[in-house]
Amino acid sequence: MHDDHPLAQDLGFLLSRASGVFAKTASEALAPLGLRVRSYSVLAFASDEKAGVTQRRLAELVGLDPSQVVALVDELEASGLVKRVTDPTDRRSKLVSATTKGSRVRDEGGRRIAEAQGGIMADVSPATRAELNALLRQLVFPKG
Amino acid sequence: MHDDHPLAQDLGFLLSRASGVFAKTASEALAPLGLRVRSYSVLAFASDEKAGVTQRRLAELVGLDPSQVVALVDELEASGLVKRVTDPTDRRSKLVSATTKGSRVRDEGGRRIAEAQGGIMADVSPATRAELNALLRQLVFPKG
Repeated sequence: MHDDHPLAQDLGFLLSRASGVFAKTASEALAPLGLRVRSYSVLAFASDEKAGVTQRRLAELVGLDPSQVVALVDELEASGLVKRVTDPTDRRSKLVSATTKGSRVRDEGGRRIAEAQGGIMADVSPATRAELNALLRQLVFPKG
Repeated sequence: MHDDHPLAQDLGFLLSRASGVFAKTASEALAPLGLRVRSYSVLAFASDEKAGVTQRRLAELVGLDPSQVVALVDELEASGLVKRVTDPTDRRSKLVSATTKGSRVRDEGGRRIAEAQGGIMADVSPATRAELNALLRQLVFPKG
């Protein structure tokens, strides 16, 4: 495909293809840890929010249906990476929280992804990367 | 989600979420035409390459498996939007080419998507849009 093709001007198409390139790279980087991109994303949020996070909130954060998140949390719990704990502020509610092993695996996954993405971005200057990051944050978090 | 969250710094995650925002918008814009994002992408390539395009090439362009492309072409052919024609340069090969109706629907789809995406991008200046477009093209077409 030539980059003067009409669809190469379409931002949605470019985002989808660029996302696909990164997802494939991340998927390969995470495979040795037994994680896929979606399960890693759930683990990352559960690990980064120290107090734990509800499944409903995880669904919003990761952009999946609540039922998909429940299945991913089940899988991560079976692997000993997260646990469901009672919310101390609402005893009827459960929070998903990373175990010590889960936090370690999350950090290792983050390092592996960063290294693999560095390869894709090798020809893009740090200033340009920061700019791309800022532009995308503006799209994803319009009020952020 | 706050945009100072660690995952909000992850380019792969941001691309995936931004792509999701655009895909949802495009999907809603295309629904009245009976198209989904994937079938529209196939139609767009078949329509934009005047001589027609092989299914193998379509798979590369759209980033799908050949079997998925065959199913999408079957669907578009049943709707009268594309046809399979013999490649004049290789009579054993078939090219996918848009019908007149298909080209009209492709143009209408492009207009609808552009209008809907304009809403998402309302707060982003044209210069910034052009910059984002150029950066993504650099990622998706590294030699382009």
